[in-house]
Amino acid sequence: MLAAEALGTSFLLAIVVGSGIMAERLAGGNVAIALLANTLATGAGLTVLILTFGAVSAAHFNPVVTLAEAIEGRMSGKLAIGYVVAQISGAFAGVAAAHGMFGERVFAYSLHMRAGWPQIASEFVATFGLLLVIRGVTRSRPAATPFAVGAYITAAYWFTASTSFANPAVTLARAFTPTFAGIRPIDAPGFIAAEIAGAIAALLFSRWLFCETALSR
Amino acid sequence: MLAAEALGTSFLLAIVVGSGIMAERLAGGNVAIALLANTLATGAGLTVLILTFGAVSAAHFNPVVTLAEAIEGRMSGKLAIGYVVAQISGAFAGVAAAHGMFGERVFAYSLHMRAGWPQIASEFVATFGLLLVIRGVTRSRPAATPFAVGAYITAAYWFTASTSFANPAVTLARAFTPTFAGIRPIDAPGFIAAEIAGAIAALLFSRWLFCETALSR
Amino acid sequence: MLAAEALGTSFLLAIVVGSGIMAERLAGGNVAIALLANTLATGAGLTVLILTFGAVSAAHFNPVVTLAEAIEGRMSGKLAIGYVVAQISGAFAGVAAAHGMFGERVFAYSLHMRAGWPQIASEFVATFGLLLVIRGVTRSRPAATPFAVGAYITAAYWFTASTSFANPAVTLARAFTPTFAGIRPIDAPGFIAAEIAGAIAALLFSRWLFCETALSR
Amino acid sequence: MLAAEALGTSFLLAIVVGSGIMAERLAGGNVAIALLANTLATGAGLTVLILTFGAVSAAHFNPVVTLAEAIEGRMSGKLAIGYVVAQISGAFAGVAAAHGMFGERVFAYSLHMRAGWPQIASEFVATFGLLLVIRGVTRSRPAATPFAVGAYITAAYWFTASTSFANPAVTLARAFTPTFAGIRPIDAPGFIAAEIAGAIAALLFSRWLFCETALSR
Repeated sequence: MLAAEALGTSFLLAIVVGSGIMAERLAGGNVAIALLANTLATGAGLTVLILTFGAVSAAHFNPVVTLAEAIEGRMSGKLAIGYVVAQISGAFAGVAAAHGMFGERVFAYSLHMRAGWPQIASEFVATFGLLLVIRGVTRSRPAATPFAVGAYITAAYWFTASTSFANPAVTLARAFTPTFAGIRPIDAPGFIAAEIAGAIAALLFSRWLFCETALSR
Repeated sequence: MLAAEALGTSFLLAIVVGSGIMAERLAGGNVAIALLANTLATGAGLTVLILTFGAVSAAHFNPVVTLAEAIEGRMSGKLAIGYVVAQISGAFAGVAAAHGMFGERVFAYSLHMRAGWPQIASEFVATFGLLLVIRGVTRSRPAATPFAVGAYITAAYWFTASTSFANPAVTLARAFTPTFAGIRPIDAPGFIAAEIAGAIAALLFSRWLFCETALSR
Repeated sequence: MLAAEALGTSFLLAIVVGSGIMAERLAGGNVAIALLANTLATGAGLTVLILTFGAVSAAHFNPVVTLAEAIEGRMSGKLAIGYVVAQISGAFAGVAAAHGMFGERVFAYSLHMRAGWPQIASEFVATFGLLLVIRGVTRSRPAATPFAVGAYITAAYWFTASTSFANPAVTLARAFTPTFAGIRPIDAPGFIAAEIAGAIAALLFSRWLFCETALSR
Repeated sequence: MLAAEALGTSFLLAIVVGSGIMAERLAGGNVAIALLANTLATGAGLTVLILTFGAVSAAHFNPVVTLAEAIEGRMSGKLAIGYVVAQISGAFAGVAAAHGMFGERVFAYSLHMRAGWPQIASEFVATFGLLLVIRGVTRSRPAATPFAVGAYITAAYWFTASTSFANPAVTLARAFTPTFAGIRPIDAPGFIAAEIAGAIAALLFSRWLFCETALSR
């Protein structure tokens, strides 16, 4: 299970960062075209990864998803920590893989500024929505979840000012790519705090909305 | 149920308006590229929202869909009014959320002119088609409805001259954004009238085409 | 059934022609961007139309599909003629509707030259592939047919030199739009001949490949 | 079965090469737009081909997929050789068909340089991922496989530096097109070696990850 989480998160980052590099190199300066390509690759790729690894590890690829499952008592705290370590390790491996495929240095700090309250608010909304989607669709139409998550991220790349990181492992690893998808290390903590807050808000709200009963551990 | 309608409609507007802002900012003046991005985000996002909230409130997010259900006797008039109030409130909240995420003022009048008979005819056709799709697919393949509605709007953004609002709550709320997705308040009543007319025409036509029997209340 | 064929084909043409007009107006001269938008709208729209009308009329919207069904003995010759008349009438109504929505004259000859053997060969291949896809998918995974046909046309807009009309009713009606999707009336007969030839070739080939037994009337 | 493999691979190459020609001709020099169109056509087309021919031949269209099945003992060595011959023949026929539809010479060497370790590493990763996706999704959600493979290639066109050939038959045939999708014949052997290595690595890894038991012949 931990190998699936690590490998899946690694592919996710390779897709996000790699397609960002390719898109920026080819787009001739038109950022909308670059982001369209980056969106298409990420949305399609994320759906595929959830389909591939879902039956093995539930395909979280995201510490706040794991955190929500642990809070709900659906996985032990120990397993949750293992998941998060696997996700973060995988995320960094994925960035390194993308850099290797495009002939970039293994890691380098990002200089891509993503600061200010609109960005922070965007991460809150993006993560709130992501968790709500996962909860709602998993509950009523579980087989559609991989498509729903891919489509949500497709939309969220565009409707949030931050292009929707919505994932602390992704945020950390993207601080170490100097390419299109990067984020300055100094901006990462704000993103991660907003993501955790958005996830917890979604958890509380969806408990009420979807009438879920929290299973005590 | 009302909370799901309000929140879903709010996310819908955040997606339509937010992705419009992002697309226009990045597209370097090419409106086709901006509309492509806006289309992709809206089509994917609408599908996800219906998947997420469908089991809770049937995911109308649209007063004319609610009106049609009420006319057919599938929901009480009182509940229908609650739905419409939730939808309109949610729509304004969604516009405000999009503006917040992109650092715009909470609300401002739109100056985007969308006038003339071709635009009115477009809204009639767009809403007629939307209701027909919902009726036809819900009846024969209900599980495919979220995908059908998302795909219909994807097409309708391009095949109608108005980019297919097809939703009075959406039309009202988009009158208060000065961005890509806006519509001048003075143009909104014509759109809304055409939408209601298109919905009623679809209702009558689909009763005959799909041999539906109206359930009396 | 005939009403569903007529209305469905009408919407199909409104989508093809309407999205072509919108795309060309907005694309600032970049034909690839215009065709991308036209492709997205057509692929998504065609899938929706088949989902909506499939349960009523089997959603042919295409005389060569009807021809193939009649040759296979799955529908009477009389019904087939009714279908084809409904499809052609609907196609012209759809072009008129698109022109109405975009403030163009009801009908006007196209000046868009689409001549030469590569174009003819393209229509043969496009229609051969379309019929093969319909046969193959209907036989093994009928529920996936609407998605398969939409995805096939998405691909065929790009991999054939003619942008894949693959439909005599569509070809006839597109001769009367002076816009992006048009074809000169003088070029239409060659297209239609190639489409019929491609359909018959696919019929013979798929009988053998999919081991179908032709039902005698 | 061999006819299905040959015809399917032929359509695959016609789609890849044909849409590349169309995209490059129309894109006005913007390579990102050309690759977006090429991606859309390939992803949609590949999904359709697997849906169409899957029930006949399992729709490999790829020698390394056939190799993996033979190694696992799910098909005889003799049948596997037949598949590979059919795939390579079909691939060349598809390139010729695309050239015919676009008025190009039947075959011509490509001058498109795709050399260097990043490209080789990309093919390794692309093929490793492709086989992992096929294994994982076929095992847990077989009906979703056509969509998963199409979506994977959609992502892989962008997240690898080589645009993800991931298929020796495709690589060989693309050496003989002087168009957008081409690869210099001198670069093909490195690609093919990396593809075979990636496939074998995926085979070993997925045996462990998905706890598969190799059936002995």
